[in-house]
Amino acid sequence: MSATGAQPAAYYTGNRQFSLERAEPVPPAAGEVRIEVAFCGICGTDLHVYLGHMDQRIGDHRVIGHEMSGTVDVVGEGVTDWKAGDRIVVRPLDACGTCSSCRRGYRHVCQRLKFLGLDTDGAFQRYWTVPAHTLHGVPDELPLDLAALIEPAAVACHDVRRGRVQAGEDVLVIGGGPIGMLVALVAQGAGANVTVSEVNEHRLAMAKDFGFATLNPKACDPVAALVEATDGKGADVVFEVSGTQPGVDLMTAVTATRGRIVMVAIHATKPAVDLFQFFWKEIEMLGARVYEPEDYDEAIRFVAADLDKARRLITSIKELPELQAAFEELAGDPKAMKTLIRCSAGATA
Amino acid sequence: MSATGAQPAAYYTGNRQFSLERAEPVPPAAGEVRIEVAFCGICGTDLHVYLGHMDQRIGDHRVIGHEMSGTVDVVGEGVTDWKAGDRIVVRPLDACGTCSSCRRGYRHVCQRLKFLGLDTDGAFQRYWTVPAHTLHGVPDELPLDLAALIEPAAVACHDVRRGRVQAGEDVLVIGGGPIGMLVALVAQGAGANVTVSEVNEHRLAMAKDFGFATLNPKACDPVAALVEATDGKGADVVFEVSGTQPGVDLMTAVTATRGRIVMVAIHATKPAVDLFQFFWKEIEMLGARVYEPEDYDEAIRFVAADLDKARRLITSIKELPELQAAFEELAGDPKAMKTLIRCSAGATA
Repeated sequence: MSATGAQPAAYYTGNRQFSLERAEPVPPAAGEVRIEVAFCGICGTDLHVYLGHMDQRIGDHRVIGHEMSGTVDVVGEGVTDWKAGDRIVVRPLDACGTCSSCRRGYRHVCQRLKFLGLDTDGAFQRYWTVPAHTLHGVPDELPLDLAALIEPAAVACHDVRRGRVQAGEDVLVIGGGPIGMLVALVAQGAGANVTVSEVNEHRLAMAKDFGFATLNPKACDPVAALVEATDGKGADVVFEVSGTQPGVDLMTAVTATRGRIVMVAIHATKPAVDLFQFFWKEIEMLGARVYEPEDYDEAIRFVAADLDKARRLITSIKELPELQAAFEELAGDPKAMKTLIRCSAGATA
Repeated sequence: MSATGAQPAAYYTGNRQFSLERAEPVPPAAGEVRIEVAFCGICGTDLHVYLGHMDQRIGDHRVIGHEMSGTVDVVGEGVTDWKAGDRIVVRPLDACGTCSSCRRGYRHVCQRLKFLGLDTDGAFQRYWTVPAHTLHGVPDELPLDLAALIEPAAVACHDVRRGRVQAGEDVLVIGGGPIGMLVALVAQGAGANVTVSEVNEHRLAMAKDFGFATLNPKACDPVAALVEATDGKGADVVFEVSGTQPGVDLMTAVTATRGRIVMVAIHATKPAVDLFQFFWKEIEMLGARVYEPEDYDEAIRFVAADLDKARRLITSIKELPELQAAFEELAGDPKAMKTLIRCSAGATA
């Protein structure tokens, strides 16, 4: 059903508030596509926006949201790869194409990158207009609610690829939130022996259910536990997803000689880092940010490969008018993992 | 001339003191070689020993020294690759061969590594007995005084190899001491555009003489200078050789998107590190420690390729009985780069 008249859109207006308004759907310009959004997950970054940490970047009248799925509503001039009704997800990156990062082939970390849903309006609305080059098709067997997990799964695929995880390697994931859990699942899929370090007992229980070894660094000596579990070697690959000083202390302590650390977390402060260990054990650390197109391809395969497993990550589905309540709940609920918002009333998977 | 009777050996005895004694040369056991040491350079690590920073590891009666050159005096049982008179250098690493690092092929960072000249007696003596597997031959055209630079040059070759430096890349070396200067020279040899950041004006002058761009972070904004010099890109590879907090701040600030940082310095404290930049620019950091056999091969080629250039690094040659004075001078002389000790009276290049 194509857009007619003003349609619901949830605007972040500052001070932990969303305002549900109606907005005229944006007609797609040449090279653009208008999408009817089905589902959109709440990302950790969205939570930062809600908590006011990103007001300078976001302003006070912005539709956020980018972990989405939907169908093509109408295509702009010159768009031939997509047609109305196509089931899609958006890779929400718009690179400048001319900066030194873009010129060297790293468009996903463009120096003037626009992140759709932060630097432009996003997907917590019924209709969303985006550049056609951001679309990836969703296979028929993959329900659209689960397809909303493709964006965070692509982050995890990128992280695991940056870490060059091999079958049989010992992997430690520090932090078992949605991204940490997806990193652990993707690494498990690559054949690694995965341990999740987490302090939240609900998340530890979920990690156990997924078949990971677990440790709670508040209840044991995590370094001793890891060293023992790996016969003195330590972890081949460590994903730091906690963004905390204890996480940073743990990462250098448990990494094996010539092991790799993937820096997934966004550290807003500058933690003390044991650089001696980098020298001593010839550790390698790799920063990892968002994703490249092939990570989306891999994430689509990953989510489609085990629908039941993907579904266990979704702990709540709410309607767009409940967005305010969904954020309030998510900010205080230790049991929550991934909350999805149904952005088109009646959208089905 | 083979050893007869007790021979001179300089023992570190604690409290910034060396004691010149006479010691009976150690007969080589099976698989060992006794060397007549020609020259031995004073390493930054030796200076740390002298300053008392490593007393727990070193004890109070230890011959140190490992940046050496010499000739084979006598070989032990079963040694067929070497004969008396061969001109050699020692790669001063003795790995256990059985730990998880050794088993995975990383013998140079063995978990029980013995570093000859720290964990065993070293080369500040006339005769030195070592495992035969530590020897590398020195080509005839390479004088033995310059051959004493092979060990630190091997460190630099290892560092540059870890950093995967390519021709045309912009390289920043933070810290222009002997290792930093050698890293800069090896990177220059690989075709990189090298800048040296240093606060000591004597070292800056030497760096300029070698053809490097230079910057003094106390006299300019080093980040602005590097960003401008690279058209906004930043450095492709940064070698942190300073071991300081300002060096650590500079390394994350100037590294290009997807650039590499090689952690060469030994950071005794845990500096604050801007981990956000690792995420944001997908920076890679690689710890680098000592060398592997192929780094020695490369270092021998490197020193032999330009004898005049190598000679400019040697700012002083002293006799073994002057070792105490040499350390005292080196610890306080801002003009000093590399001091060599002639360990066999009358040894010639």
